[in-house]
Amino acid sequence: MPSFPAKVAIREVGLRDGLQSIPSILPTERKIEWIGDAYAAGQREIEVGSFVPARLLPQLADTAELVAYAKTLPGLVVSVLVPNLQGAERAIETRADLLLVPLSASHEHSLANLRKTPDEVVAEVARIRAARDAAGSKTLIEGGIGTAFGCTIQGRVEQSEVLRCMQALLDAGADRVSIADTVGYAGPAAVRELFEKARTIAGERFWCGHFHDTRGLALANVYAALETGVARFDATLAGIGGCPHAPGASGNASSEDLVFMLADMGIETGIDIPALLALRAKVAGWLEGESLHGALWLAGLPKTFAAPAALNA
Amino acid sequence: MPSFPAKVAIREVGLRDGLQSIPSILPTERKIEWIGDAYAAGQREIEVGSFVPARLLPQLADTAELVAYAKTLPGLVVSVLVPNLQGAERAIETRADLLLVPLSASHEHSLANLRKTPDEVVAEVARIRAARDAAGSKTLIEGGIGTAFGCTIQGRVEQSEVLRCMQALLDAGADRVSIADTVGYAGPAAVRELFEKARTIAGERFWCGHFHDTRGLALANVYAALETGVARFDATLAGIGGCPHAPGASGNASSEDLVFMLADMGIETGIDIPALLALRAKVAGWLEGESLHGALWLAGLPKTFAAPAALNA
Repeated sequence: MPSFPAKVAIREVGLRDGLQSIPSILPTERKIEWIGDAYAAGQREIEVGSFVPARLLPQLADTAELVAYAKTLPGLVVSVLVPNLQGAERAIETRADLLLVPLSASHEHSLANLRKTPDEVVAEVARIRAARDAAGSKTLIEGGIGTAFGCTIQGRVEQSEVLRCMQALLDAGADRVSIADTVGYAGPAAVRELFEKARTIAGERFWCGHFHDTRGLALANVYAALETGVARFDATLAGIGGCPHAPGASGNASSEDLVFMLADMGIETGIDIPALLALRAKVAGWLEGESLHGALWLAGLPKTFAAPAALNA
Repeated sequence: MPSFPAKVAIREVGLRDGLQSIPSILPTERKIEWIGDAYAAGQREIEVGSFVPARLLPQLADTAELVAYAKTLPGLVVSVLVPNLQGAERAIETRADLLLVPLSASHEHSLANLRKTPDEVVAEVARIRAARDAAGSKTLIEGGIGTAFGCTIQGRVEQSEVLRCMQALLDAGADRVSIADTVGYAGPAAVRELFEKARTIAGERFWCGHFHDTRGLALANVYAALETGVARFDATLAGIGGCPHAPGASGNASSEDLVFMLADMGIETGIDIPALLALRAKVAGWLEGESLHGALWLAGLPKTFAAPAALNA
């Protein structure tokens, strides 16, 4: 049997993937409270927002302020999503630690969502890399390949196309690549197969999996990915989110359920589950009326639960 | 990487584990319709009820009638749960194909739930085996070891105790043994470890896993179990059920989500998903007001979905 990573990083993407998909707009001070509480609970990677025009996503118009706040928290890896060079320039200016450029392996989804072909996104990544290097910036560039397991618009997405895009992103200068099941089509056997191949192509530069729980398989998919050695996953508190351009997609992997599964497996995440559940309760209050997900908040921790030893060391 | 079984059997336990845990009482004719529709959808193993005194579980008082009906369906494996020799005698009389005797590896849960110690249950299985053999019956005897991953009453349950009970059940004459996470404490690493050891002890006689989705891990647990070669799982339509003696436990693995995951992995179950979803909608109508689970019914099948080829062969 394959072994599991000893440590896994969970990147909280609720403030971006979550909040961009729901009608509620959280005020900046509440987002700051969320980031602060998540940090206090042990979260060390947070995607705080997106540098897109405010007219497109008014929910995320305060991303620069959030980056500025998050950068005051020692050791926090502050990520932002950027759709293009303009967004990347803002990420570089604000000294975000990482900028994620989404690429859709589905040609049709790419056109609908980004108004670019996958190869046009690759070309944009090359421009972003040049701008980053010219600025002498340390901001890491991650190419995130979405609709990697199929697409609600186009249907099938070939594994070979996903892997071609991955190689192209690396060739264009992406420091990291990741794979997302944007529309919740992935199952664990497909994850295992694709992630193994991705590791072969990108090695340690393939570093993150992003799963939606649309059909209840997000955690099974994470488990399958863990067996391939991937040790970083996106998740959202209370599972909020999904892609607004992918009809029927809803529910990310829930951060608290994911942390619980990993802790139960003896895998260190550094995250304190009761503190995370308290934050979930707070955010659920702020987002009253929105559709929330996850199971642990309702069932509570098992009587027998013990966090991996290193957490309290 | 470990390989997966080519075929997996799903035993529908919604009529027993599901209906015994909820206030609604389904009339016998609706249960018969459920069994008939499940059979038409391709389900070939159904636990139709339990031979317990009707004053304890009035919901299941019609089990003998259901066995009689189910036995008319060619190739259907008709199971019943029995808590003791009296129940087993009724299972044998009605010619059920399999009787499952639950044993709780948690001493305290065993006393609370069955009013017997685990070893007293083992002794009962020996008596059941003697009665079965004396009757010249072909009814298979399955010892189902519950609370195998921990217990809401007792807390920890040692793996060694689960395996000791398993060996004792086999020694007492059980034809089959299975493992259940009665209270939803299992995670996939623990499943992989325990199921591997169980296979070593019981080989092909260890034949079924039963997971609750209390903390969202039922399907991840099934995936981990598949990697150990186990190829039969209990599940309930719409995830109904849970153990009434285990506070906080709720939600079985949902049959429809499980079939979907397996089909997506290319594993044959013989079950037609649209037909199963139609049955789910019907049963959901009957059980209005009850807490139902699962994700596929809401999201629908992916646009790219294709059932494993053998289904329509």
